[in-house]
Amino acid sequence: MAQQPSRGLADVVAAATALSDIDGTIGRLSYRGYDINQLAGAATFEEVAYLLQRGAPPSSDELAAYHAEIVTGRELGALVRTDLPLIAHNQEPMEALRTLVSLASAGDPDKDSNAPMANLRKAARLTAQQPVLVAAYEAARNGRALPDPDPQLSLAGNLLLQVTGRRPADRAAEILDTCLVLHADHTMNASTFAARVCAATLSDMHSAVVAALGTLKGPLHGGANEQVMRTLEEIVKNAQDDPVEAAGTEVAARLSRGEKIMGFGHRVYKVEDPRATHLRAMAAELAETAGDDSYYLMSRRIEKTVLREKGLYPNVDFFAATVYHYLGIPTDLFTPVFSVSRMAGWTAHVIEQHADNRLIRPDSEYIGEAGLAWIPLAAR
Amino acid sequence: MAQQPSRGLADVVAAATALSDIDGTIGRLSYRGYDINQLAGAATFEEVAYLLQRGAPPSSDELAAYHAEIVTGRELGALVRTDLPLIAHNQEPMEALRTLVSLASAGDPDKDSNAPMANLRKAARLTAQQPVLVAAYEAARNGRALPDPDPQLSLAGNLLLQVTGRRPADRAAEILDTCLVLHADHTMNASTFAARVCAATLSDMHSAVVAALGTLKGPLHGGANEQVMRTLEEIVKNAQDDPVEAAGTEVAARLSRGEKIMGFGHRVYKVEDPRATHLRAMAAELAETAGDDSYYLMSRRIEKTVLREKGLYPNVDFFAATVYHYLGIPTDLFTPVFSVSRMAGWTAHVIEQHADNRLIRPDSEYIGEAGLAWIPLAAR
Repeated sequence: MAQQPSRGLADVVAAATALSDIDGTIGRLSYRGYDINQLAGAATFEEVAYLLQRGAPPSSDELAAYHAEIVTGRELGALVRTDLPLIAHNQEPMEALRTLVSLASAGDPDKDSNAPMANLRKAARLTAQQPVLVAAYEAARNGRALPDPDPQLSLAGNLLLQVTGRRPADRAAEILDTCLVLHADHTMNASTFAARVCAATLSDMHSAVVAALGTLKGPLHGGANEQVMRTLEEIVKNAQDDPVEAAGTEVAARLSRGEKIMGFGHRVYKVEDPRATHLRAMAAELAETAGDDSYYLMSRRIEKTVLREKGLYPNVDFFAATVYHYLGIPTDLFTPVFSVSRMAGWTAHVIEQHADNRLIRPDSEYIGEAGLAWIPLAAR
Repeated sequence: MAQQPSRGLADVVAAATALSDIDGTIGRLSYRGYDINQLAGAATFEEVAYLLQRGAPPSSDELAAYHAEIVTGRELGALVRTDLPLIAHNQEPMEALRTLVSLASAGDPDKDSNAPMANLRKAARLTAQQPVLVAAYEAARNGRALPDPDPQLSLAGNLLLQVTGRRPADRAAEILDTCLVLHADHTMNASTFAARVCAATLSDMHSAVVAALGTLKGPLHGGANEQVMRTLEEIVKNAQDDPVEAAGTEVAARLSRGEKIMGFGHRVYKVEDPRATHLRAMAAELAETAGDDSYYLMSRRIEKTVLREKGLYPNVDFFAATVYHYLGIPTDLFTPVFSVSRMAGWTAHVIEQHADNRLIRPDSEYIGEAGLAWIPLAAR
């Protein structure tokens, strides 16, 4: 092995994709050639999921047909419905979603096919199903019935309705819709890469998405938004008086002890993550609407402290936490809600991988001992 | 992005490992410095699992303690026991194992910890549990009770007992034990790599193993041994008279049509895979014991045909199919039985990844359009 390992495959080009592109030097993210600054607030999540999965923006008729697939796809299968209460009482949210999506393949008529049309149908169904699984989990663990979806609401609106049990304000549904647009895809992030590694054995879309969910579960990936919120909650709980002052003091103290502050820095962006810009603005708006700006102002203070002390910008997870908090989403469902959005990207990457497949099988560098003689147990 | 993508990460060193090493030019595979030619027939699977997971061959006392962990670990949790019949009737074997292992984290006392000792305990439990899940699935789908394990038998012996419902001959148990030794680890194969990508977000061992199971499910990876058997079964079914002659003719015809014959060639080995050498010998022995050498002779004829026509050597999947067939393992459980062995490697790789972690997050090359203007739906 002449080649040195690239720790974490940083800067190694692992795949070609036409789905999303990041220019980390100027902070630009685009989906299929459309800058997310154009899409945020202008395109719905359903349009973006269609764009990613099917290659181009939908016409009105195409969007109506896709919407019909979403409506059908949000019906949970029998196996999932039967098992949901037991799982909700015994597994944590991401653990449960990993299991539930794995169970859900049982009811999928296309489960054994990787054919292009089968993959498109499964992608729509998985996109439709994910918000319902999150909401059904929340309802089941609280012993509530899952509210019926409202045909007038978007996927984002129904997610808020079904998770919180209350019909969301129009603007709240729009803001969550924009969050889902912002989080839908992000090149070769760890969960997406796991999905592609899985799909590249010609395994099926459900297996790939289950791998992605397990990968997103990790605190260095999807788990970060929850940890941001836990930090904010800790600061509020321990603050003697003003939590905003306390946020600055506490974060500066943690940094001086060499601790990492979650929600800052990114391997790819050297300037501000463009998603953070939108999320910050939405956090400010929700704080004003809520008449409670404490979490927003704490976040701003932390942002300034980390930039001053470490030169790090907030990433997508940092202001997403505050936005989700103001939207009434329980903290331990932040990563599950993120998965609702990223499902669009994961499924699109599986479609892309299957369309031009090669097994993903890297080399490794051996760093252990060599040439040892095995001594039988009796002689050891 | 200056760098060109390496399709499938071929020849890209993605990680350093002290677990296994392949020299593809001379056909050598070693685990922690021990050539598998030394281990096959001399070390038990339990010793090899211990070696991989814990770093050195166990002493007698250490092996006895590990065996005690295996005995405890093979008790299935309540959630898995409750759900097993429903899953067995609604999901195919690898699909079901993906779900069952995902469910099993619910009962694991160490599930939320990636600490070294917690990972060692989980690795032993997952290794103990996997054969029982395979056998319990087989029993449940056939409406049989799962036979109790026999404390006198090895993990391999109990796997045969519990899958087939019959106490295996001593030599059959030994041969399966050797198969499990041969399949326990194989550097950065796709399922192991998926497990490491998942674990590198600091997600937990169950998530990583679930990702690996979904990845192994694909026909370009674990599914290959089943496809070898299906090919042999098709040839037997369609043969006018001598199936051995038919095997040669049929495979030559398929090759001349440009079709791929499963079980041949490997990205890493340029000569014969050393595991294939052992598996061929065991297939010959089992054929003689069974008094039915047709599957063995067909395999030999196919091997010769593919070598002559394509210059390709059989890989690990080719003779494994014949061996598993003679051992009485149902064809659709070949990949699940392989997963029993590879569980030792997957869990050891998760331990190794967590011990010196860095997020695995490659780059991608963008090949789509750029700078497109988003046109609102009403104007499209």
